[in-house]
Amino acid sequence: MTELKNDRFLRALLREPVDQTPVWIMRQAGRYLPEYRATRAKAGSFMDLCTAPELACEVTLQPLERFALDAAILFSDILTIPDAMGLGLYFAEGEGPRFKSPVQNEADVKRLSVPDPELDLGYVMDAVRLIRKELGGRLPLIGFSGSPWTLATYMVEGSSSKEYAKVKGMMFDRPDLMHSLLDTVARSVIDYLNAQIAAGAQAAMIFDTWGGMLTPRDYNTFSLNYMAQIVDGLTRENDGRNVPIILFTKGGGAWLETMADTGCDALGLDWTTDIGEARKRVGERVALQGNMDPSILYASPERIREEAATILKSFGPGSGHVFNLGHGIHQHINPDNVKVLVDAVHELSTPYHQE
Amino acid sequence: MTELKNDRFLRALLREPVDQTPVWIMRQAGRYLPEYRATRAKAGSFMDLCTAPELACEVTLQPLERFALDAAILFSDILTIPDAMGLGLYFAEGEGPRFKSPVQNEADVKRLSVPDPELDLGYVMDAVRLIRKELGGRLPLIGFSGSPWTLATYMVEGSSSKEYAKVKGMMFDRPDLMHSLLDTVARSVIDYLNAQIAAGAQAAMIFDTWGGMLTPRDYNTFSLNYMAQIVDGLTRENDGRNVPIILFTKGGGAWLETMADTGCDALGLDWTTDIGEARKRVGERVALQGNMDPSILYASPERIREEAATILKSFGPGSGHVFNLGHGIHQHINPDNVKVLVDAVHELSTPYHQE
Repeated sequence: MTELKNDRFLRALLREPVDQTPVWIMRQAGRYLPEYRATRAKAGSFMDLCTAPELACEVTLQPLERFALDAAILFSDILTIPDAMGLGLYFAEGEGPRFKSPVQNEADVKRLSVPDPELDLGYVMDAVRLIRKELGGRLPLIGFSGSPWTLATYMVEGSSSKEYAKVKGMMFDRPDLMHSLLDTVARSVIDYLNAQIAAGAQAAMIFDTWGGMLTPRDYNTFSLNYMAQIVDGLTRENDGRNVPIILFTKGGGAWLETMADTGCDALGLDWTTDIGEARKRVGERVALQGNMDPSILYASPERIREEAATILKSFGPGSGHVFNLGHGIHQHINPDNVKVLVDAVHELSTPYHQE
Repeated sequence: MTELKNDRFLRALLREPVDQTPVWIMRQAGRYLPEYRATRAKAGSFMDLCTAPELACEVTLQPLERFALDAAILFSDILTIPDAMGLGLYFAEGEGPRFKSPVQNEADVKRLSVPDPELDLGYVMDAVRLIRKELGGRLPLIGFSGSPWTLATYMVEGSSSKEYAKVKGMMFDRPDLMHSLLDTVARSVIDYLNAQIAAGAQAAMIFDTWGGMLTPRDYNTFSLNYMAQIVDGLTRENDGRNVPIILFTKGGGAWLETMADTGCDALGLDWTTDIGEARKRVGERVALQGNMDPSILYASPERIREEAATILKSFGPGSGHVFNLGHGIHQHINPDNVKVLVDAVHELSTPYHQE
């Protein structure tokens, strides 16, 4: 395959020296970009956009044309696996994801089987291959999946939830059933991410959006445990290069040590943990990705630069930091402010990477 | 005044010996109780219920008839102060609180003044006096307020918010204005809580619902800083007894040490922190209140008892623990399960309080 022209992102994840701190933005291909909204309108529904490889490729590349980002991330949804399991994913306008057939009882759990990524999720693998081709070695491509606990939450609730009554009811009263569900989902995620890596993904990130609403004990048992199985099961090399694995539990700042114990390469941080403190705790073992409050992008360019400087200073000299927001970019952000941020990270980080 | 018959709650907050771990439930007077829904229907709107002292008293007492709770908490809303400032609080059906005149600019901030609790919030003080009279010394009464940051969030956003674009925009770009707003609100909270204490509240709790969505630095500067001013400004004695102060920042588990530095008597914990770990960190300085996952109340009575036992064991022997949920009780909980929990806490905690 083509030599990678910009490998800062992969090097920083492996804590190898870099010239500048790499930066990408969670949800960098998204609604804040007018060109994304145009492609989305052309596609029809959100799922139509996800399932058309050439359109998924188009929106994946859009932010790279505007900003000096150091990585591309596959445009897809975190709920493709349960959809491939037959739960019938759809998006009610303004209401987030829903499933036509949520998992409600033991029979529903037993009925689930591990999808074949190339047969059942071929549109994702085709998108990965097409994006790699279009990138032409310019930047690395990140593949991703939701965590088993996060996927299970949607699968059992059938939609977004504020109280998690159903999924927690199952967890507390039928832990056996919950473990059976999570085991099937974890095996599915392993196959799915390995297929993405085989198709060309050069790093993989696991998004654990809802692990942070568990007690520490339940987090270990029902979320982290299955992410650790995934880390163990993933192909960690491709084209003679390491494929780094990033774990991100929103609200998981208290649990970085046990997250690092999984053997992953990097941890995503939301903005409620100071990145310098996090580095002191786990920075000898894993790289850190994050962690600017996404709301800073509503502020002035001066304030955005100042905040980038604060985070870079908090992390301090040396490699092992991938700059990002602490959560996905909001839809009403002015894209010009993203350019300010990306350029500031490169410029202001240079002194931290000199001998 | 009448001698207090059950003072476990006040004693535990001051880490004085008790016979059993006291327990109360955040939002114990609320929609999960059919008798509450009946009173609410009789009252009309939610604000009609809050502003009628005899109805507020009625719903405050309702859960005490059903469960062996160790404290009553004033029934009111956290947004009474901004309402008294003239922002026009109302509740859109199914949408949470809204303000007719949110705080949008410098002129709006300058216009705000500190309400006189007896003149402008007399209905709250009347409710406190009436509840104290009706309680007749049976149990202590908790007064409360929202934290300045939490109140400011609603005041600037004008409603609940997912992204906090406006309030964070003001915080990042006009910190001077945000500090001016927070200072006015903090002085208002001091007067408001001192008036509740003068009217008969025997403990006070500050609810910082939104402090947990700040960075550690911004939490210290914009939330904790003003809660510390309040702790400094409160009357700490009444009828010859200490009036303990409880601080609760949802999502603030990483910041317990600096919260204890305010000089408060107790910290509320949500369920994402292990209470035994929290006790090791700050238990020599403050009592702890919490911290069962509210969703456990969807589970079976056996599972609820088991979870109560786990939390009591994690805290361990000795005083300094007030049992509670880690957040308000959900509206679809079966009240019978609350009885299971309250009785379990008393029964299962007894061995931890023997010499």
